[in-house]
Amino acid sequence: MTAYVPPVADMSFLLGDVFDFDEKMSVLPGFGDINTGLATSILDEAGKFCARILEPLNRPGDEQGCRLADGVVSTPQGFPAAYRAFVTAGWAGLSGAPEFGGQGLPHVLQLLLDEMLSSANLSFGLFAGLTRGAAETIFHHAGDALKQQYLPKMIQGEWTGAMALTEAGAGTDLGQLTTRAEPCGDGTYALHGTKIFISSGDHDFGGNIVHLVLARLPGAAAGVRGISLFLAPKFLADEAGETGLRNRMSVGALEHKMGIHAQPTCVMNYDGATAWLIGEPGAGLNAMFTMMNAERLFVGMQGLGIGEAASQKAVAYARERRQGRGADGSLGPVPIIGHADVRGMLLTGRALTEAGRALGIWTALQMDIAARHPDPATRREAGGYVALLTPVVKAACTDFGFETAVKSQQVFGGHGYIREWGMEQYVRDARITQIYEGTNGVQAMDLVGRKLPMENGDPARRFFALMRDDLAPQAAEELEPARRAVASALTRLEDLTGFVLSRAGDPRETGAAATEYLHCFALVTYGWLWVRMAGKAARNSSPALARHKLAMARYFTSRLLPRTVALESAIRAGAADIMAADDALL
Amino acid sequence: MTAYVPPVADMSFLLGDVFDFDEKMSVLPGFGDINTGLATSILDEAGKFCARILEPLNRPGDEQGCRLADGVVSTPQGFPAAYRAFVTAGWAGLSGAPEFGGQGLPHVLQLLLDEMLSSANLSFGLFAGLTRGAAETIFHHAGDALKQQYLPKMIQGEWTGAMALTEAGAGTDLGQLTTRAEPCGDGTYALHGTKIFISSGDHDFGGNIVHLVLARLPGAAAGVRGISLFLAPKFLADEAGETGLRNRMSVGALEHKMGIHAQPTCVMNYDGATAWLIGEPGAGLNAMFTMMNAERLFVGMQGLGIGEAASQKAVAYARERRQGRGADGSLGPVPIIGHADVRGMLLTGRALTEAGRALGIWTALQMDIAARHPDPATRREAGGYVALLTPVVKAACTDFGFETAVKSQQVFGGHGYIREWGMEQYVRDARITQIYEGTNGVQAMDLVGRKLPMENGDPARRFFALMRDDLAPQAAEELEPARRAVASALTRLEDLTGFVLSRAGDPRETGAAATEYLHCFALVTYGWLWVRMAGKAARNSSPALARHKLAMARYFTSRLLPRTVALESAIRAGAADIMAADDALL
Repeated sequence: MTAYVPPVADMSFLLGDVFDFDEKMSVLPGFGDINTGLATSILDEAGKFCARILEPLNRPGDEQGCRLADGVVSTPQGFPAAYRAFVTAGWAGLSGAPEFGGQGLPHVLQLLLDEMLSSANLSFGLFAGLTRGAAETIFHHAGDALKQQYLPKMIQGEWTGAMALTEAGAGTDLGQLTTRAEPCGDGTYALHGTKIFISSGDHDFGGNIVHLVLARLPGAAAGVRGISLFLAPKFLADEAGETGLRNRMSVGALEHKMGIHAQPTCVMNYDGATAWLIGEPGAGLNAMFTMMNAERLFVGMQGLGIGEAASQKAVAYARERRQGRGADGSLGPVPIIGHADVRGMLLTGRALTEAGRALGIWTALQMDIAARHPDPATRREAGGYVALLTPVVKAACTDFGFETAVKSQQVFGGHGYIREWGMEQYVRDARITQIYEGTNGVQAMDLVGRKLPMENGDPARRFFALMRDDLAPQAAEELEPARRAVASALTRLEDLTGFVLSRAGDPRETGAAATEYLHCFALVTYGWLWVRMAGKAARNSSPALARHKLAMARYFTSRLLPRTVALESAIRAGAADIMAADDALL
Repeated sequence: MTAYVPPVADMSFLLGDVFDFDEKMSVLPGFGDINTGLATSILDEAGKFCARILEPLNRPGDEQGCRLADGVVSTPQGFPAAYRAFVTAGWAGLSGAPEFGGQGLPHVLQLLLDEMLSSANLSFGLFAGLTRGAAETIFHHAGDALKQQYLPKMIQGEWTGAMALTEAGAGTDLGQLTTRAEPCGDGTYALHGTKIFISSGDHDFGGNIVHLVLARLPGAAAGVRGISLFLAPKFLADEAGETGLRNRMSVGALEHKMGIHAQPTCVMNYDGATAWLIGEPGAGLNAMFTMMNAERLFVGMQGLGIGEAASQKAVAYARERRQGRGADGSLGPVPIIGHADVRGMLLTGRALTEAGRALGIWTALQMDIAARHPDPATRREAGGYVALLTPVVKAACTDFGFETAVKSQQVFGGHGYIREWGMEQYVRDARITQIYEGTNGVQAMDLVGRKLPMENGDPARRFFALMRDDLAPQAAEELEPARRAVASALTRLEDLTGFVLSRAGDPRETGAAATEYLHCFALVTYGWLWVRMAGKAARNSSPALARHKLAMARYFTSRLLPRTVALESAIRAGAADIMAADDALL
């Protein structure tokens, strides 16, 4: 198996040549000295860490898994040392708030680091991603005392974070959760309850583990309005401020999972754990959404990272593996990368992955603009794009990441099914990204039910207009068919959006349309990005790269974009046929 | 987790109400007394065996896996006893030749047994399927002495079979294989070589294990024309005719796989193993195709069986699991089967599974007709359908089986990712069915490159005409939109077939079209079958079942059939965009 090669060249191409990174950064206060050259050298270093330290632990970590003995969780060999090295090198704090010791670099660099972490070692990357999400929630919602106590250590990665939302009876529907928080009279609360599926719930990296826990105060309203958010650390501060005292929480079990075996997914028991309220009583879900939104983009990058790693390895294998005759009739055996059916699988993986990266970068740039641009209207507009695209990045990059992992595994034939080759791990690991942080069905409902209608539909309309402007006729004639195909698909998407919104009053109609609509939206967006990438490459890149990006753009629009037609048909059929089937006879 | 319920009612509906089983059997010599009632009671008993004996071993078998110690393979606890019970009950010989102790029942019953075996325990079913394929090859190609010696025990399942084709450097491209067969001068041969991925290569069920091995004779031609087929048993007959002597073959290793852990997939070393030639020198691949064609239908049923089991369990879970508000706005929590997005996943699984079963039954009926019909033209015609549809059944039922397993797992949310719930095993197990017995890419190339053009395209033309005749206007008005949609998709498929065949001279064009074409062919065929099922249910079934099948037919045609439009666009784009991408930049 060839080693993972961090795709820094493509990242650099996207930042500098496709998305005018230097110009965008130059207008953001504090980012004036950040440019593509600097970003590339940071990504280069980060990529080396991922490829040299983390990827070699990926398969052994999968085989060895985590263990729970006498209440203590052990991660696979090498993980604690790698985590310490990750923190020492400063990668944990890349985009963290400088006032708490972070490096304050742009979100877009964080996102690309996340992709590489995920390509190299999904289980490992999850520790870092959850810590960042927890820290962000504390940053935005907790009081100063909690911030001062927790953020410096969390932002630098010394301490890690975990999100404790799900219970056996409350998954997608958090309104059903039953964990209780009893006021102790001294400003603290005692948590009682059991949470499941708690990633990074415990580990052996040292340092504290900061659990953000959703629970109900006494007399709280039923449903989601009665949910508050609490902070419960594994270790409490003793009188000297050291973390000496074990809090009353414990790992009930480790979940046995399909994949991400090196990630200790815990059943957590809170048996009177001391906790502090974050934000207002009853506003827990609101605070949790800060965490979830950050995590959703992160999970999108997990899907993308798996797709990148898997498709890279499939391409490398197809270059070496010789089977069958050549297309010119030569006896062979020839490298299978020359067989059109194998190439189709490879190109699908590459086309989905590179466009997904472009979408991730574009969205993260909007996050940076939303956070720093001097003009409030520009900030608001960028924030609208981020809100609109978060469910799209999460669901599309993970669905397409899984598709890419499966197709890449297929390229290996029987070897793809054998553990030693590593391809089947990508499929097993990728599968969780479609499920957690809100299933992709939940993402689709979020897009159709909340994000399209928000602000009277302005963000969606603006986004469509932005794509349309950018799709104005290109110079290169060879790109015209692709450009026209995407422009026409965009027109259909806009009509379809109107159709979907006109039926939004009936949850059956929204549910029947949501997943297909999200995929349609994502494919049109990917089409726009392919035309943009090919157009920019024609102007800014070497002739060879320009030709290649043109071929990829044409491949995407002729082979993958047509899926939108099928999706549109399905959506326009509405909910009636879905609801008519007889439950008892299914 | 609910228990698997053998879908005997649907099988009985398909045989009796949809495909005129009694009438078809009545004209086949020897099958005059076989009818739907008899078939149903046989399937009922077989289903009980699968549900009661085999399914309880499925998850433990996955957890425990197979072991190799001191050259001896152990299957998981309970497997040897279950296998003996399977043989004793007579299930191994259901469709075997009566002259060798088989029961000689129709292929269609065998196919439905295969589906249920696969639903209950894919790893277990593979032992039976491979034995049958090996026996069939011996039956058709070996001399009388070998037949007399091996077939009685194999057909009754006392002895098992294995196919030894693949080598590390020779997978899809068998022409590269290097295993040698040296004549010993006494009519036997000594085999030297190493084969990989040998399912059922060894086990602890007792009895002999009959390996069919592809190898080269000295001086054989290069490529596939130099390949011969040999029979090498694990135990040789001693002078008393007992199987006392160990042949010179050994298990080099067990493969570590993504799934089917209870199936001992072996690396086999043949170190001068005594073997007998089957058929003519150099005709090995031809003989092996007998085995592979039987196995391909079997593997299709494996994919179907996994889809059936997974979607059954998803439906059962969705009936019980309560999350979220009702579609009528009621507070809930309501069973998630009422949520349109969940229903969409469930209905997709059911629609693909039930149509796949119909396709399997129709194809197996043609096998029975091809084997027994008194009229040679009818036999030839039926044989053409079987040849045409074999790659479709294999690839479509496994691709859709995998899709169904993934969607069914998704219905379980986070629980779907947890091993104890059993859903992730279906995904892991299903994945092999898309890869082995010729990857689904190979099936697609077989359909487009060999089966469409065979006999000047007659079988394909006849099959399209048959579907068109059957799609003549129905009585039920509610079925009209579905019928029209399928009829129109069929017209497009026929045009598309001409387009694909017109480019068949260029392997790049064939490769670029093959997978999408096979899916398009399968979806149109499924559409025809849904219209037929709904139409027959309207005439022959209870009003409730008729309404349900109508809803399913409408669901299939409005939500899944439109995929054909996207596939057609992709196919018509041709190979140019696939070939243009720069290998070095992928």
